[in-house]
Amino acid sequence: MAPDSRVQKSRAAVLAQTYELLTEGGIGGVSIEEVSRRSGVAKTTIYRHWPSKVALLLDACSSIGTPPETPDTGSLAGDLTALTERLAEQLRTARWAAVLPSIIDAAERDPDLAGLHTTLHAEIMEPFTTVTERAQARGELAAGREPADLVAAIAGPLFYRRWFSREPLHDAAIHHIVRDALTRATT
Amino acid sequence: MAPDSRVQKSRAAVLAQTYELLTEGGIGGVSIEEVSRRSGVAKTTIYRHWPSKVALLLDACSSIGTPPETPDTGSLAGDLTALTERLAEQLRTARWAAVLPSIIDAAERDPDLAGLHTTLHAEIMEPFTTVTERAQARGELAAGREPADLVAAIAGPLFYRRWFSREPLHDAAIHHIVRDALTRATT
Repeated sequence: MAPDSRVQKSRAAVLAQTYELLTEGGIGGVSIEEVSRRSGVAKTTIYRHWPSKVALLLDACSSIGTPPETPDTGSLAGDLTALTERLAEQLRTARWAAVLPSIIDAAERDPDLAGLHTTLHAEIMEPFTTVTERAQARGELAAGREPADLVAAIAGPLFYRRWFSREPLHDAAIHHIVRDALTRATT
Repeated sequence: MAPDSRVQKSRAAVLAQTYELLTEGGIGGVSIEEVSRRSGVAKTTIYRHWPSKVALLLDACSSIGTPPETPDTGSLAGDLTALTERLAEQLRTARWAAVLPSIIDAAERDPDLAGLHTTLHAEIMEPFTTVTERAQARGELAAGREPADLVAAIAGPLFYRRWFSREPLHDAAIHHIVRDALTRATT
């Protein structure tokens, strides 16, 4: 194997094991020691690529929120419905949904991890930001209604059901949430 | 000191140190070992009162959500505005607001701690449940509108701003959230 492809393979193994540990035990479950043991990559090599645990976590999580393409159905209602259905599905099944609380918790105490949280949150919500800002530019939001408030009115109740009240995310509930938020933001 | 008051003093010291450790480092930061060291109460004594770490955490957190009296202003709008202002203030300053993400994270992986989370969540949200159910009983909610959905429409965006988007909880934003949720639930 060429040196470059060996380096790439080690790098991928380290990132995969980091993410695996994160899923299993949250941020507290990730240590360079254990990543090294599981990936078979020496600790010194890991530290050469990632100077700190935060750098490694940031890299391992960088694909968490990478959003698939942003829908462009021609209407704000269509775009938001598509995005909200996808978000609900991710909240039910995606691994990041089980990992995010650990990052939020760590962000309460550690400024570096607060930076990681900010990056991830922006990535996860990016399609919502895009479609609501596009709608505002087209004049579809009522006066005094901000894109960020519309996003919070949709993502808020979804996240609340997923992590706080732990209620199921039925399709009917999701469509109610989107319709209510839209009605208030556009009239 | 009478034996009873000595027992009570030890008990209070153990609970205070448990909560202190929880605030400092989340659930991962709490160990019976460290609680014993800080409180000066022997580990065997701690285990005699609380058979497990979860039992101890549950007890230490039991006052987290103990709600002050539920407002009864005579109108749903008045009650919800008072409650939401208080919740926003708690989210800005209360220690439980810094601790809750750690409990949510643990609840993702540990069924016992999921039980702790359910108990705490119910305590924290109890006044909202009371006033929205009271409003439904008085016929103030529109057909098909459930108290739980109204609570999610208010607490969701607040929690979203506090823990996810990390936006400030301005009074103007709070009043917007309450007004929007109420308009949708009652018309």
